[in-house]
Amino acid sequence: MRIAVINGPNLNLLGKREPEIYGSTSLDEVNNDLINRFKHVEFTFFQSNIEGEIVNALQQAMRYSDGIILNAGAYTHTSVAIGDTVAAIKIPVIEVHITNIAKRENFRHHSFISAHALGSIIGLGVEGYALAVLWFSETKS
Amino acid sequence: MRIAVINGPNLNLLGKREPEIYGSTSLDEVNNDLINRFKHVEFTFFQSNIEGEIVNALQQAMRYSDGIILNAGAYTHTSVAIGDTVAAIKIPVIEVHITNIAKRENFRHHSFISAHALGSIIGLGVEGYALAVLWFSETKS
Amino acid sequence: MRIAVINGPNLNLLGKREPEIYGSTSLDEVNNDLINRFKHVEFTFFQSNIEGEIVNALQQAMRYSDGIILNAGAYTHTSVAIGDTVAAIKIPVIEVHITNIAKRENFRHHSFISAHALGSIIGLGVEGYALAVLWFSETKS
Amino acid sequence: MRIAVINGPNLNLLGKREPEIYGSTSLDEVNNDLINRFKHVEFTFFQSNIEGEIVNALQQAMRYSDGIILNAGAYTHTSVAIGDTVAAIKIPVIEVHITNIAKRENFRHHSFISAHALGSIIGLGVEGYALAVLWFSETKS
Amino acid sequence: MRIAVINGPNLNLLGKREPEIYGSTSLDEVNNDLINRFKHVEFTFFQSNIEGEIVNALQQAMRYSDGIILNAGAYTHTSVAIGDTVAAIKIPVIEVHITNIAKRENFRHHSFISAHALGSIIGLGVEGYALAVLWFSETKS
Amino acid sequence: MRIAVINGPNLNLLGKREPEIYGSTSLDEVNNDLINRFKHVEFTFFQSNIEGEIVNALQQAMRYSDGIILNAGAYTHTSVAIGDTVAAIKIPVIEVHITNIAKRENFRHHSFISAHALGSIIGLGVEGYALAVLWFSETKS
Amino acid sequence: MRIAVINGPNLNLLGKREPEIYGSTSLDEVNNDLINRFKHVEFTFFQSNIEGEIVNALQQAMRYSDGIILNAGAYTHTSVAIGDTVAAIKIPVIEVHITNIAKRENFRHHSFISAHALGSIIGLGVEGYALAVLWFSETKS
Amino acid sequence: MRIAVINGPNLNLLGKREPEIYGSTSLDEVNNDLINRFKHVEFTFFQSNIEGEIVNALQQAMRYSDGIILNAGAYTHTSVAIGDTVAAIKIPVIEVHITNIAKRENFRHHSFISAHALGSIIGLGVEGYALAVLWFSETKS
Amino acid sequence: MRIAVINGPNLNLLGKREPEIYGSTSLDEVNNDLINRFKHVEFTFFQSNIEGEIVNALQQAMRYSDGIILNAGAYTHTSVAIGDTVAAIKIPVIEVHITNIAKRENFRHHSFISAHALGSIIGLGVEGYALAVLWFSETKS
Amino acid sequence: MRIAVINGPNLNLLGKREPEIYGSTSLDEVNNDLINRFKHVEFTFFQSNIEGEIVNALQQAMRYSDGIILNAGAYTHTSVAIGDTVAAIKIPVIEVHITNIAKRENFRHHSFISAHALGSIIGLGVEGYALAVLWFSETKS
Amino acid sequence: MRIAVINGPNLNLLGKREPEIYGSTSLDEVNNDLINRFKHVEFTFFQSNIEGEIVNALQQAMRYSDGIILNAGAYTHTSVAIGDTVAAIKIPVIEVHITNIAKRENFRHHSFISAHALGSIIGLGVEGYALAVLWFSETKS
Amino acid sequence: MRIAVINGPNLNLLGKREPEIYGSTSLDEVNNDLINRFKHVEFTFFQSNIEGEIVNALQQAMRYSDGIILNAGAYTHTSVAIGDTVAAIKIPVIEVHITNIAKRENFRHHSFISAHALGSIIGLGVEGYALAVLWFSETKS
Repeated sequence: MRIAVINGPNLNLLGKREPEIYGSTSLDEVNNDLINRFKHVEFTFFQSNIEGEIVNALQQAMRYSDGIILNAGAYTHTSVAIGDTVAAIKIPVIEVHITNIAKRENFRHHSFISAHALGSIIGLGVEGYALAVLWFSETKS
Repeated sequence: MRIAVINGPNLNLLGKREPEIYGSTSLDEVNNDLINRFKHVEFTFFQSNIEGEIVNALQQAMRYSDGIILNAGAYTHTSVAIGDTVAAIKIPVIEVHITNIAKRENFRHHSFISAHALGSIIGLGVEGYALAVLWFSETKS
Repeated sequence: MRIAVINGPNLNLLGKREPEIYGSTSLDEVNNDLINRFKHVEFTFFQSNIEGEIVNALQQAMRYSDGIILNAGAYTHTSVAIGDTVAAIKIPVIEVHITNIAKRENFRHHSFISAHALGSIIGLGVEGYALAVLWFSETKS
Repeated sequence: MRIAVINGPNLNLLGKREPEIYGSTSLDEVNNDLINRFKHVEFTFFQSNIEGEIVNALQQAMRYSDGIILNAGAYTHTSVAIGDTVAAIKIPVIEVHITNIAKRENFRHHSFISAHALGSIIGLGVEGYALAVLWFSETKS
Repeated sequence: MRIAVINGPNLNLLGKREPEIYGSTSLDEVNNDLINRFKHVEFTFFQSNIEGEIVNALQQAMRYSDGIILNAGAYTHTSVAIGDTVAAIKIPVIEVHITNIAKRENFRHHSFISAHALGSIIGLGVEGYALAVLWFSETKS
Repeated sequence: MRIAVINGPNLNLLGKREPEIYGSTSLDEVNNDLINRFKHVEFTFFQSNIEGEIVNALQQAMRYSDGIILNAGAYTHTSVAIGDTVAAIKIPVIEVHITNIAKRENFRHHSFISAHALGSIIGLGVEGYALAVLWFSETKS
Repeated sequence: MRIAVINGPNLNLLGKREPEIYGSTSLDEVNNDLINRFKHVEFTFFQSNIEGEIVNALQQAMRYSDGIILNAGAYTHTSVAIGDTVAAIKIPVIEVHITNIAKRENFRHHSFISAHALGSIIGLGVEGYALAVLWFSETKS
Repeated sequence: MRIAVINGPNLNLLGKREPEIYGSTSLDEVNNDLINRFKHVEFTFFQSNIEGEIVNALQQAMRYSDGIILNAGAYTHTSVAIGDTVAAIKIPVIEVHITNIAKRENFRHHSFISAHALGSIIGLGVEGYALAVLWFSETKS
Repeated sequence: MRIAVINGPNLNLLGKREPEIYGSTSLDEVNNDLINRFKHVEFTFFQSNIEGEIVNALQQAMRYSDGIILNAGAYTHTSVAIGDTVAAIKIPVIEVHITNIAKRENFRHHSFISAHALGSIIGLGVEGYALAVLWFSETKS
Repeated sequence: MRIAVINGPNLNLLGKREPEIYGSTSLDEVNNDLINRFKHVEFTFFQSNIEGEIVNALQQAMRYSDGIILNAGAYTHTSVAIGDTVAAIKIPVIEVHITNIAKRENFRHHSFISAHALGSIIGLGVEGYALAVLWFSETKS
Repeated sequence: MRIAVINGPNLNLLGKREPEIYGSTSLDEVNNDLINRFKHVEFTFFQSNIEGEIVNALQQAMRYSDGIILNAGAYTHTSVAIGDTVAAIKIPVIEVHITNIAKRENFRHHSFISAHALGSIIGLGVEGYALAVLWFSETKS
Repeated sequence: MRIAVINGPNLNLLGKREPEIYGSTSLDEVNNDLINRFKHVEFTFFQSNIEGEIVNALQQAMRYSDGIILNAGAYTHTSVAIGDTVAAIKIPVIEVHITNIAKRENFRHHSFISAHALGSIIGLGVEGYALAVLWFSETKS
């Protein structure tokens, strides 16, 4: 089983940026934790602050992955382009948000991705990535 | 570990109601599956079509549970009362929706519960309940 | 032919409540009038002020009725749950309103039920129940 | 008893236009069916695609009818002028829609006529015209 | 003088629920305080978490009370049914809110009850109940 | 000085239609009163219930009038076409409304004509037509 | 006949302020023109840039005038207080605007005064004041 | 105990202005009634039709009062400035409205003051002022 | 190949009406230019200022045309009836606008026709009609 | 160089009012600081809590100033009148806000003044006044 | 004649992505078809999934092209930056959309580009690119 | 003191793009002017048309700057990502806009950056950059 984990803008600051909101674990630690816990899964990791590079990454993941875990960060709320790419590619995408976006500003309550994704895991911290991997493991294998 | 699983209106029809949307597993099967998979968890199950009985159930769960899994069904989108109860009780609540509500009518895009819950698992089918149990198991034990 | 007639909150006050708006016939008189005029129809009558009991009544009517006549009263304008039940059950539902809700407050102009019902009869007084029975008689028998 | 039946734009295409939505009965068949079923009623039939001619027809019907059945078609949702005429004339008007407009586009959910009509019969197919005639027969004779 | 005091969802948690918002007095203490301070008043107390039971209680209070004090809690903001019942019954209702709802979330700024009640006392803590009793005492006796 | 007076839908009912709103003077009486009071003005009168005929009338008035007085009735609030014609023709148009539309339904508060007209006289009864003639007389002669 | 002419903020700049919008006649010239043309009318003139002084002036005019001509300038669009005063006093008020406010910014399209005034004369320049005087002369004397 | 009672625009007309809405008691009578009933309270009374003078009065009351009762009349719905002053001063303010503003026009349903005041007493007539004094007496002394 | 070219209100003024917006070519010149450039196409031309006559023309064009080019002018933005007719007829319709409606007033940004038409050519001047003919020629022959 | 510094409601409380928001410098200290730092500038200072007096002050400043610095406080968000005066006077106005209004309530995000001012300096504390003076000094001298 | 054809996000998937919506022709085939049909035109082709690279491409095209054909894909609906660039460059831009965006989700109905482009060709499939080239050929050469 | 000056899309066209709006000074000239006037400041300059590169630049500036001056151009109004980055980094950011965005289209009136920045300088031309430097100099050194 091959899973692509794609993270969007400012998630490279994870652990450093507003830790009272986002926690103190870095993105590398999150990714390594997935590798350690899910030995049978082949992971690809990608992070970019550039909207179109996330579009590119999703298009490429379509060719080599069985599932995609996408945390598009701030682009979640503004990017029709990423939403369109999720709709265009043919493999399932689970949307993950570390924080509970329903507790935050109004403009974070709408996602252009959700309606095209399979489902969402929101507000359960970095553990949300692991739960998404679990879902792929249990329902796809 | 004690977990209360509380389901709202029409979820008693699960498996019979619009199976192309909600799947063909009954609520009893979902609950039994949880009991079988998570031997170390002591479950309480509750379902009602009456808004105020869900308020009651949440208030009572506060006294005997370590965590609550809540799928308030249609009341998700209209009940300030249930949202208030989630805020009032002191133990963590994970909101689960079987279907991807972002793909459905506009009035299902807003939840009065999300902002008071710990987080949400949406659109991952009845497997969402199990993922929520996993979250409690891993972070609370 | 079996028809369930389900009435919602405050319709038990019919004839007593604001008669200049709702008329002076009581709900019992309305129901008896249906029994007298439609001898070939087997009626079930239900009234409740509790939203979830109307959900229950609709779910039960699904098992023993050929058609449902539903006047959900104030829940018409707020209940996603009742609308969901109408969508979930498999027998036709005609929505009836005694008064012309288009003449009244803005919040009464939207119905969460209409889009799931077969159709609506609005503003024709208690005679609207009889017209709904007629429709079932003529198109179903 | 004299009843005027007034139909608006594109209802002359009834039976030919999108039959999966509007059914396969032509307007002439609908009208003849009324004549055959209600021998005691003297009918006047009018159809026009022109908004102002419907205004004219309503003004004229005021002089020779005891009741009016109006399906203003698309003008239902845009014509303040027809709504004003319904308010201005002194005989009762029942609004009929063949399809359940609550199931259709948002702009069909509002009617400029309803608030001035006596009541509405919606979504019960061409049978809606007959139910309106019945109402006039039973309450006016 | 007979006064019914009706409280809605979660008010049974008063004193325990978020005391920094709602204070530390329990509902029983509030009710007993009224009994002690207003010896000449015959009180009836009712609390329920179920919307329709509040409808029922208001309908019943109509038969044996001279005035009603209603704190419908969260249903204040969503219940057309309770608002309708306040309009339907013939004795005066004063709406009380313990907290200043204008300081809280937007969805708490609108009340479906206010427009049908005689008036409102908001944000003055549990003392608001006593002020409402005083109003009935002074203007009705 | 040549002035065209153009009236829209239902104004042919003036004096008969809801006289408590529109007064008891007929349109002929209004027109004759203008002829009698303003001997030096050559009037053309036109009334139609059909939106497009008002467009036609405005286009024609452009060729033989020095000013136009337009009461478009209900089309005021819905007709982009009439507004466009007022903008397209090159002679001044004064908009008149007999009733104070600001006191009436919300949908009567916006005019598609005002922004293209020279100005408006609203709520001063049928005397508004005469004031408009006076304006043309005093500023154009 | 006694008429009070009340002007609001910045109208003291008339003739100097943006003459391409408001024209080049000063407020004194407008007022003197009224005195000269309507010898039989006893005028009172008032101008203030302070909202509450216009409230005061309207309250005082109630005691000594037969009619009021009010151009509240910018307060037209923001002052509930002036609208309330127009509703509270018992003599007729005609609202005048020199410019065609329908051609200007959106926030100038709503008037808090219109619904309480008798009627409005808009966009006909300073001649609008004279037309208002004419209306009082013809209908009141 | 020192209490400042501050009233806004048109409340000087109390008893004379639309008595079917506001009652027939004058503001002087209301104030004298307070003096007579609450001998132990030292009152200051202020009324103005000018928004900024109410700002001034609130700033001054901050120096010599233990509590403020504020009925800002129409400025309630438009004045950010008065709301800011209530927030800026350090003594408690109770907002009073004589009429039930929830029964009136939409623009009266929002108050810029409520969110900064301690609480509100609405729709209980001029008795509302006395209830506010009582609140201060009971909770502050 | 037979093509119907249908133009709506005020397009008969083309070349005369606001030429800085609509250009200086008359509608006859536009039509003749199409005849001259596309010898193999049999054209029918229709223009009307009356909404319902455009409905009629579309219904008739359905019987004798292979394609329709429709510039509904101002009715584009208000006519549900014309949109319905475009949906009802079975031959392809291309919507043309001479000016770039996206540069103009907000109410011109929405078209009730676009969603039912095949596509649109907007803002390319009268050349838009010829491009639409080209499309039919290339894809249909 | 002559500069008028005009401050609106509650700015006379500067240093005393909510110092955690507005800082602890008084308005006199701010003004004296400007005098000390910009010896070559002749300052006029004005503060009022009354909207119309700010209109007056702006009209007068037009006659004796080369530039105006305006902090209209709460009137920024409600006063069309002050916005109109800024548009009417012929000398440049720079809008200053001490706090970052974008961080505060929604109703503070819109300014009726900005669109008529030259520009704005927001959220830079009382230093904003000095920066505005600097702008006038550098670009005007 | 030199024309730049610029395509936005996901258009590199053309022919592969949701062919029932976008057709089965690849972007290379579309581009080659243009080269083959329009021998006298010198084409430049550019596609990117990155918003800012489209801004760059438009800025560069300004230096070497006579016309630009732009299909900004999903950025059409979100990119003020691309709209600004279209406004900033001095050569004409025609906006093309392959699908009829008026038939799709609401968020696709608004374009930030249209108001700055010369015009639009929408819903006519990949043939829309050729029609745009034709327009440049006929009106520019 | 080290200051990073970051400019967004199309600002590389400064001096060439619509000079009647943006002026005729190029971005290089603006930057050089800052270097010349503020000898004690060490500047870093960055411009990009790509949203994510501005996110990158802000993240990097966090490591080597004492303050940031940010003109995000069109991304101001659409980029939650840039707003998030401004919130995430720990050094102060001043937002600068050359033009007065309050005078322009509605979609330019909202900034996703302002609420996270320290403050804003708007509409004061390229001089706004210098004023921002001054602020850093005076308050940080």
